[in-house]
Amino acid sequence: MTDLQFVPRAEFARVLSLDVDAARKTALFADLCRINTLYMIARAGSGHIGTSFSCLDIISWLYLNELRAPGDVFFSSKGHDAPAQYAVLTALGHLPFEKIHQLRRLDGLPGHPDVGTPAIAANTGSLGMGISKAKGMLLANRVLGREGRVFVLTGDGELQEGQFWESLVSAANHRLAGVTAIVDHNKIQSDIWVSRVSDLGDLEAKLRSFGWYVARVDGHDVSALANTLSGLHSVIGQPKIVIADTVKGRGVSFMEGAALKPEDRLYRFHSGAPDDDTYVKALVELVARVDAALVRLGAATVRLDTASRPPRPVLAKPQRLVAAYSKALVEQARRDPLIVAFDADLALDTGLLAFEAEFPDRFIECGIAEQDMVSQAGGAALRGLLPVVHSFACFLSDRPNEQIYNNATERTKVVYVGSLAGLVPGGPGHSHQCVRDIATLSAVPGLVMLEPSCDREVDQAVAYCLAQTRESCYLRLVSVPWEIPFDLPTDYQLIEGRGLTLVDGADAVIFAYGPVLLGEAVKAASLLRDRDGLGLRVVNLPWLNRIDRKWFAEAVRDVPAVFTLDNHFITGGQGDMLLRTLAELPHQPRRLARRLGVADIPRCGTNDEVLRAHGLDAESLSATIVSAMREPVTV
Amino acid sequence: MTDLQFVPRAEFARVLSLDVDAARKTALFADLCRINTLYMIARAGSGHIGTSFSCLDIISWLYLNELRAPGDVFFSSKGHDAPAQYAVLTALGHLPFEKIHQLRRLDGLPGHPDVGTPAIAANTGSLGMGISKAKGMLLANRVLGREGRVFVLTGDGELQEGQFWESLVSAANHRLAGVTAIVDHNKIQSDIWVSRVSDLGDLEAKLRSFGWYVARVDGHDVSALANTLSGLHSVIGQPKIVIADTVKGRGVSFMEGAALKPEDRLYRFHSGAPDDDTYVKALVELVARVDAALVRLGAATVRLDTASRPPRPVLAKPQRLVAAYSKALVEQARRDPLIVAFDADLALDTGLLAFEAEFPDRFIECGIAEQDMVSQAGGAALRGLLPVVHSFACFLSDRPNEQIYNNATERTKVVYVGSLAGLVPGGPGHSHQCVRDIATLSAVPGLVMLEPSCDREVDQAVAYCLAQTRESCYLRLVSVPWEIPFDLPTDYQLIEGRGLTLVDGADAVIFAYGPVLLGEAVKAASLLRDRDGLGLRVVNLPWLNRIDRKWFAEAVRDVPAVFTLDNHFITGGQGDMLLRTLAELPHQPRRLARRLGVADIPRCGTNDEVLRAHGLDAESLSATIVSAMREPVTV
Repeated sequence: MTDLQFVPRAEFARVLSLDVDAARKTALFADLCRINTLYMIARAGSGHIGTSFSCLDIISWLYLNELRAPGDVFFSSKGHDAPAQYAVLTALGHLPFEKIHQLRRLDGLPGHPDVGTPAIAANTGSLGMGISKAKGMLLANRVLGREGRVFVLTGDGELQEGQFWESLVSAANHRLAGVTAIVDHNKIQSDIWVSRVSDLGDLEAKLRSFGWYVARVDGHDVSALANTLSGLHSVIGQPKIVIADTVKGRGVSFMEGAALKPEDRLYRFHSGAPDDDTYVKALVELVARVDAALVRLGAATVRLDTASRPPRPVLAKPQRLVAAYSKALVEQARRDPLIVAFDADLALDTGLLAFEAEFPDRFIECGIAEQDMVSQAGGAALRGLLPVVHSFACFLSDRPNEQIYNNATERTKVVYVGSLAGLVPGGPGHSHQCVRDIATLSAVPGLVMLEPSCDREVDQAVAYCLAQTRESCYLRLVSVPWEIPFDLPTDYQLIEGRGLTLVDGADAVIFAYGPVLLGEAVKAASLLRDRDGLGLRVVNLPWLNRIDRKWFAEAVRDVPAVFTLDNHFITGGQGDMLLRTLAELPHQPRRLARRLGVADIPRCGTNDEVLRAHGLDAESLSATIVSAMREPVTV
Repeated sequence: MTDLQFVPRAEFARVLSLDVDAARKTALFADLCRINTLYMIARAGSGHIGTSFSCLDIISWLYLNELRAPGDVFFSSKGHDAPAQYAVLTALGHLPFEKIHQLRRLDGLPGHPDVGTPAIAANTGSLGMGISKAKGMLLANRVLGREGRVFVLTGDGELQEGQFWESLVSAANHRLAGVTAIVDHNKIQSDIWVSRVSDLGDLEAKLRSFGWYVARVDGHDVSALANTLSGLHSVIGQPKIVIADTVKGRGVSFMEGAALKPEDRLYRFHSGAPDDDTYVKALVELVARVDAALVRLGAATVRLDTASRPPRPVLAKPQRLVAAYSKALVEQARRDPLIVAFDADLALDTGLLAFEAEFPDRFIECGIAEQDMVSQAGGAALRGLLPVVHSFACFLSDRPNEQIYNNATERTKVVYVGSLAGLVPGGPGHSHQCVRDIATLSAVPGLVMLEPSCDREVDQAVAYCLAQTRESCYLRLVSVPWEIPFDLPTDYQLIEGRGLTLVDGADAVIFAYGPVLLGEAVKAASLLRDRDGLGLRVVNLPWLNRIDRKWFAEAVRDVPAVFTLDNHFITGGQGDMLLRTLAELPHQPRRLARRLGVADIPRCGTNDEVLRAHGLDAESLSATIVSAMREPVTV
């Protein structure tokens, strides 16, 4: 395991004290921040390098030279460039420097910005909200008689979100001169070129037509950037937007967009951490550039500190549900020519690359435009197709929620597949940890929701959704590769509304689903048996909103205690369904019934940390169960 | 009560057979349709005259001359112009003619389009979805090897929705020439001028910058419209949009936009039915114009049929919760200078006019841009204000759902007020009958949801939300004026998580909230007592997602049967919370527990019809309760 290197605080101070013009100093500072950004992401094991590197010259300039007045605010609307902002904030002492060792760790620096972190002005990571938030901040300034400008950084893929365009209108109409938006126009979004995913067209003309003052500049030419921003002071009574032409992965040759070959389907450095070799090669390039600049200024080369990379859990034989989904989808599509697949710039992450390769004419790339995607699927279903709609669960279940309901009222069949569901991975933070989707979709009539627990159950769930049921479906998928401590019997057969006992036990029963928490429940049952002499029956129930009442009545018969376990907020999940069904069943003997699940806004951290912090790892679960069963019975 | 008049089918046939050019025939046909539109709305007691009149020349031309190929499709994205489309469809026999007598009636013509109605291609009424749906339809054509163009009519206020702009992009990139959008640019949205609510700016430039072919025409000059549409045939490989300049209320002088005075805050003919005098004056104008045209053509004047207006229920002393809210909000705002109110073009309907008049600087009109509105509120809350965000419950709870959650993760306080909640009024149809909001908001952490049942409870609920609790709130308001068959005690005091017994009874208890279903429950209790000798205890529980467990345990103690009653889908409402709490309570004797509420997509009809159709009127409820209590106990 390679050690990692970072720029210590003193080196930033030394560089900032050099006698050199602001532009050159900023460029050098930004490169130092790139080294620390690389460090943080390598150490965390995940993060967004490309987008952090593309905006570092801009963010550095803003903090070093532009945000002077006490009321001035900066935040990033795209949010996944948080490591870049953290690198700047720690370098300048706006954040404790030692936080750079804690990216994506519990009580450290969250994967996406959160106002719980000092100097972070807004929670972002759900795209398209930035300018709206800025307008609200300026409104507050006006009402409260405060001064201050708001600088918002946006992505370019982000501009595909409808809210962005929605948000431009009133700023222009109300002549909100206090807002300056900067588009980090690095031309590459999650999967690949913006122009290939969903081309922005004539962006300048679009923005001008919305009544904003538009400037354009090379986002890596700090002098030009400075001049452009300075020129904005003379723009009166108009909101301002700067299109900063940048390079994704800027600063490391092989991470830059130009290194992509025409046939490449994917840009490799959008998310994820570099492996050891890549890390070293990138670091060498960055250090060489920094040192060359320092030498040109007659200064000593950069001194780096070393930190060992914390050991990362090694998974012996993880299952990858999205890969299983990918394969199952293609098999169904071979059988049914009516199946079409919709994507919102997550073809890699939602498992669509194989489908796209085999059925290019039935693959519809929508860009980051979930509402448009869902209503397109609705139109396609009205005219006879079987649309399968993909995104991360957090973005698929909420933003196009009204559109999903609208489709449901047409009584057509649409299948929605939400991946990255649940509390883990814990690194990205709460904008991406989807623990609300069962609730937000629970009152969509005719929508069956299910979550498989392992590869084999994925196969059956996909067959159910696409070939068996006539109802619309929401297939909820955990994305994080996971070591699964149980095995379904070889003759396992998914039956609507029914579950399967994985571990037997007579003292209590727990219902769970999905690889993560069903796995923890199985492990908790071992602990309880071995340590507490308590028999916990563990039932895999993949149906999130369907229950076979007869089966359930049997499953809870004569068990003194019933627990439910949701990889979801406690409210609105499977547990609600099960407990109200329990209440509806006749002849209930006295029993303990308790819902377990996510009780507060998801924490950011490693998977282990996050499960533990929410009391949902096997150890905590077993402790909770024991104490619930031993506590005196009161209201 | 004035009788109403309509143009019979035969008169349409006569006009269509006249030997006159297509443009003049279309204009005449459109005016005949205006008479029937006016008839339908007057008869129904509600509907949207202004927007129906503005687009009638366009819709008439499309059906009479443009939609020739069998695969061609037309639908209206704005949807509230449904009466206009129905007038055309009935006149042409695409819909049974006698349906004109059944606008907004059960099994009649829904207030907004629904594909259950013959010749209706898509469900609309939730704004901004039209072009997305059209793209999906064209995709289906491509995949299935079918021909056909799709014509989509949009409003102009509708263009404030982000999804509209989101939807433009891929149509241009994929060169979808098969879609023709027509903007009914009548310049007036729900409340008042578009330019005053949220000005569209240079609309032509905007649309062109999005890569669409843009044409502009007088939407009432049928010849020009015909020429413009015909000219589109030569546009290759580009989606097309026609800005049709129209006049809201076109055809009746005093309903037209030009009749508005500069100081008018509201356009009076957006929604609602005309009173008798207004009806007669409008009809006289329309008939005079039609007759003059017929006479010019040497044809006989129009023969109208007469129908009596069905009696409308007269409410002796209705309560108006939105009016009570309006007053209470102003009172709180006088006390707290941090309160600001956000509106999405529903200032009249959400009770904001008084607030706006008294606090113009603290009133923020966002236009029909709910996501932008909610994120603006979030930004304002971050900087110290107390934002109160308004829209209809259906538009506030779903479309900006991710934005509401994002605000919640910032742990600021924002108050959301969703009016028009619940199953009634039953006239607008399911896009507006909000029965999903409790579910979609149930997993927003730190959000208290409550629904008051009468004017006095509104006062206390507003005080709770704005002055007492530190949590964010969702205040759910029934808008329809309602006669309330109960009275809260004079010393009534709202206590979080607790309810109040309105009617006592020992055989069963029912928990309900809000004026409509709590009222029906009270009436059902009378029926059960008098007819069945059954004592139903009725409890008003305004708390939708908070329950005081001790209080609840008392409330259900020794009652053999527990019912819950949701003005919401059965799933995800208050009933789920109560039944799972019941399951969690210790020492439950054997009991019947049953949730009552909305079981399927809301029907459209008069309020009485809709309540009865869903089994939620007092009569049905009492029957359901009796039969549930008498049926044998089984799983």
